[in-house]
Amino acid sequence: MGWKGEMTDPSFPTFDDVRAAAGRLAGYAVRTPLLSCPALDALTGGRVRLKAEPLQRTGTFKFRGAFNALSKLDEAGRARGVVAFSSGNHAQGVAEAARLLGMKATIVMPSDAPGIKQRGVVARGAVLRLYDRDTESREEIAAEISAATGAVVIPAFDHPDIIAGQGTAGLEIFETLAAEGLHADQLICCVGGGGLIAGINLAAEALSPQTRIWGAEPDGFDDTARSLASGRRESNARRSGSLCDALLSETPGVLTFAINQPRLTGVGVISDADALRAMRFAFEHMKIVLEPGGAAALAAVLAGRVDVADSLSVVVLSGGNVEPELFARALA
Amino acid sequence: MGWKGEMTDPSFPTFDDVRAAAGRLAGYAVRTPLLSCPALDALTGGRVRLKAEPLQRTGTFKFRGAFNALSKLDEAGRARGVVAFSSGNHAQGVAEAARLLGMKATIVMPSDAPGIKQRGVVARGAVLRLYDRDTESREEIAAEISAATGAVVIPAFDHPDIIAGQGTAGLEIFETLAAEGLHADQLICCVGGGGLIAGINLAAEALSPQTRIWGAEPDGFDDTARSLASGRRESNARRSGSLCDALLSETPGVLTFAINQPRLTGVGVISDADALRAMRFAFEHMKIVLEPGGAAALAAVLAGRVDVADSLSVVVLSGGNVEPELFARALA
Repeated sequence: MGWKGEMTDPSFPTFDDVRAAAGRLAGYAVRTPLLSCPALDALTGGRVRLKAEPLQRTGTFKFRGAFNALSKLDEAGRARGVVAFSSGNHAQGVAEAARLLGMKATIVMPSDAPGIKQRGVVARGAVLRLYDRDTESREEIAAEISAATGAVVIPAFDHPDIIAGQGTAGLEIFETLAAEGLHADQLICCVGGGGLIAGINLAAEALSPQTRIWGAEPDGFDDTARSLASGRRESNARRSGSLCDALLSETPGVLTFAINQPRLTGVGVISDADALRAMRFAFEHMKIVLEPGGAAALAAVLAGRVDVADSLSVVVLSGGNVEPELFARALA
Repeated sequence: MGWKGEMTDPSFPTFDDVRAAAGRLAGYAVRTPLLSCPALDALTGGRVRLKAEPLQRTGTFKFRGAFNALSKLDEAGRARGVVAFSSGNHAQGVAEAARLLGMKATIVMPSDAPGIKQRGVVARGAVLRLYDRDTESREEIAAEISAATGAVVIPAFDHPDIIAGQGTAGLEIFETLAAEGLHADQLICCVGGGGLIAGINLAAEALSPQTRIWGAEPDGFDDTARSLASGRRESNARRSGSLCDALLSETPGVLTFAINQPRLTGVGVISDADALRAMRFAFEHMKIVLEPGGAAALAAVLAGRVDVADSLSVVVLSGGNVEPELFARALA
């Protein structure tokens, strides 16, 4: 499947693409652990395993999709470099993948993105182009850069290679459980554009079809929850205003929604306060640093949006790139 | 080997005891991951793996030794209950092991121990007896409780069962590396009373004898460093005054020093500022919560006390039970 500088290829990724992505990522991505937390089990009355993507390279799962996509570019594509727009985590994934592959990357990032994410991009040698989230179009900026330089645009979620790359997290989850003779009754994962949960759905369908898959979205950015209800891709009224900066996509992707719609059992919607409480819980009982969006799935469980009692559940902790000031606020 | 309510049995633990402890811990302790951190590798010019004991049950390695010791008590011993004195982490390990085994536990803890550790003991159903670190003797208090109730005293480090239990962390490290076809050139681990590093030394001697083992101690509490220099067990002048509350033992143990003395390559001494910097590094680049003492080995590497360039090194992250206020200070 070729890259055309845009998300023009509507082909569905398959589980074979997830497996192929895992082969490309081997030796580059961290095979993150599937943790246990006795305190969480005691609190919920269930058995919960936690996929710890904050321990992934760049602090989130986003490196998986970015590296998979970039490593599929041919030599001419690599020479032209890449451009990506992102609230921050995809940006770091692309910057890191480009660095490892010796490519030039330009990142278009909102000016209100956490400083830790902006610094992470610059530290990896990428060019940072800031924009105003409320008045500028990141798509247009990226298209202009692409037109001027020939750089390939790497979308954040709505592309088969991105979805397949993120799906390697799901592959690892189900492989790890199978090696322990276990299968998950359910899995809860945050939803922004839906790339991670779409990839996980592909892995679940192949390896653990009986597992119910739940999303978790922030208040006011529950486009996937409302899209599931209406049967078509709904948009959010706002573009900012949640602590979960990683989950503020305007609408589900075309590909991701097509994959997710028939496969999701439901979506738990959580508040900023729920996210902060989950961050605090992870600090005290798991010793894992979570960013608000990365805590969304755990927050949905702790807030009772998804009932995990008397079952084996997997909660995806998706990222940990949070400003010290905000983290301190979660702990206060 | 029997428990006599005191650390009266001077028999040396062996690697067989470590293996036996691993059998007892299976299904109770978390087999913690041996993480990679590309940012740390880039910074140090070495390849570093991190044993993540903050992810252990109770947030530190201490559960390993405590559970091993308690599970070896006979029925009469279990019925009498246990008493332990500890700055906090051993306390939580004993409280949690007692809870899992249905035993009564009394914990003697300094009144300046972090609240998170005091709460952790109470939450696990143990009785908490606070004392003044500068004016009272925790040994005497524990002996009084033992005399009055028949409870068995569980020492924090200087006992074969404790050392063997902590050694399971080392067993896991070397098993994991071997499964990946790797061997460590060196390993760096914090030293309080020396129980963890003694157990790791037993595992290293059996499984990875070429690995050089380094300690890490806080400024002013470098009793093991000075003991190695003088050839006999030296004491610290102070009993408090370091942020590394987990590493303030007055002097190396009899058993632990006998094990460690011939096996340690050296000890890196670190400051409070070094520990805070390592906590911040782990927050930003590993997404792991470390307490100051739990960050000591990483601090020794980041401060250049142990050179890890051009080698494969294991750094033991030993604990993550830190007050939110102190953690926020490390991030500031």
